[in-house]
Amino acid sequence: MPRLRVHNLSISVDGYAAGPGQDLAHPLGVDGERLQGWVFATPTGRAMLGEPGADSAPGVIDRDRDRPDEQWTGWWGEDPPHPDPVFVLTSHPRPPLTMAGGTTFTFVTDGIEAALAQACAAAGDADVRLGGGADTVRQYLRAGPVDELHVTVVPVLLGGGERLYDAFDGGPAGLECVEFAGSPVTPRG
Amino acid sequence: MPRLRVHNLSISVDGYAAGPGQDLAHPLGVDGERLQGWVFATPTGRAMLGEPGADSAPGVIDRDRDRPDEQWTGWWGEDPPHPDPVFVLTSHPRPPLTMAGGTTFTFVTDGIEAALAQACAAAGDADVRLGGGADTVRQYLRAGPVDELHVTVVPVLLGGGERLYDAFDGGPAGLECVEFAGSPVTPRG
Repeated sequence: MPRLRVHNLSISVDGYAAGPGQDLAHPLGVDGERLQGWVFATPTGRAMLGEPGADSAPGVIDRDRDRPDEQWTGWWGEDPPHPDPVFVLTSHPRPPLTMAGGTTFTFVTDGIEAALAQACAAAGDADVRLGGGADTVRQYLRAGPVDELHVTVVPVLLGGGERLYDAFDGGPAGLECVEFAGSPVTPRG
Repeated sequence: MPRLRVHNLSISVDGYAAGPGQDLAHPLGVDGERLQGWVFATPTGRAMLGEPGADSAPGVIDRDRDRPDEQWTGWWGEDPPHPDPVFVLTSHPRPPLTMAGGTTFTFVTDGIEAALAQACAAAGDADVRLGGGADTVRQYLRAGPVDELHVTVVPVLLGGGERLYDAFDGGPAGLECVEFAGSPVTPRG
């Protein structure tokens, strides 16, 4: 059975995985791109981009924004950086989509368990990566099958949006910190 | 005018400065002591305890739990480690209290501005430290006079309790990160 893992999900120090006002033009919400700036702007982020498997995994599960009138084709442009099959949770049936670099998007309308089963079948012995967004991650956390949650806490405040950890209101559901990595000190500017 | 600063306020990765069920026996709520364990258990924490001013400042502002039937005498036992005067927000008038080591608790019933004015008068040119808890910090943040907020994000999940950053719903109120310090990596156990 493949392991289901979340890798490099960024949240603000006030706990938001996306700012307010998410839509197709603002997949991370208004100001949400501040959650990703560190990837390109810091040595830690640049090193992470080079890690094997950091941004790639078979059987990625992601989610569109459920807009039947718009043609969601992923968040990575015409030629996504990873060729792995992506299973996309949606409530609007669509035929599979193959991108320029070979990435396939398979649209799954019958729920998170069905999407996971298809992703596992595609992954074989490899891990399945749970791409996001926060709401999708919370659904899987509540259902229980997440094996590893790798979160980067970014020193920005968003002040609103979609919280990751609301899944745990009432208890952290057995999650424990098995590894902690602090970035280098940023001197006071 | 002294600077008003928060120093070493610990929050969980899900944003709680205290767990649920705070009372005099559990000032940080149920399981809230997990927020403080790192201070004694890690090199970073032990080093911080030795920093000048890390746990001491003139004109500390703190808060009791507003229980008129119980005699709150601080969180530090009979002989608090710092001798600086503490101005305690409460709604129940009490005479000032002097502890064994010389620490004085002055109980302030007319609000956060009055407490700050008294603390500033006591501090002279030194900083005033805003001790907590989270609710008190939020009140000062909303009112605006906080000059520096030093927060430690601890890799535990509390799943409920008192959030620090709810002060910023609707916007981060002009706060920006001026310095970031990551702890050393903790290897996977």
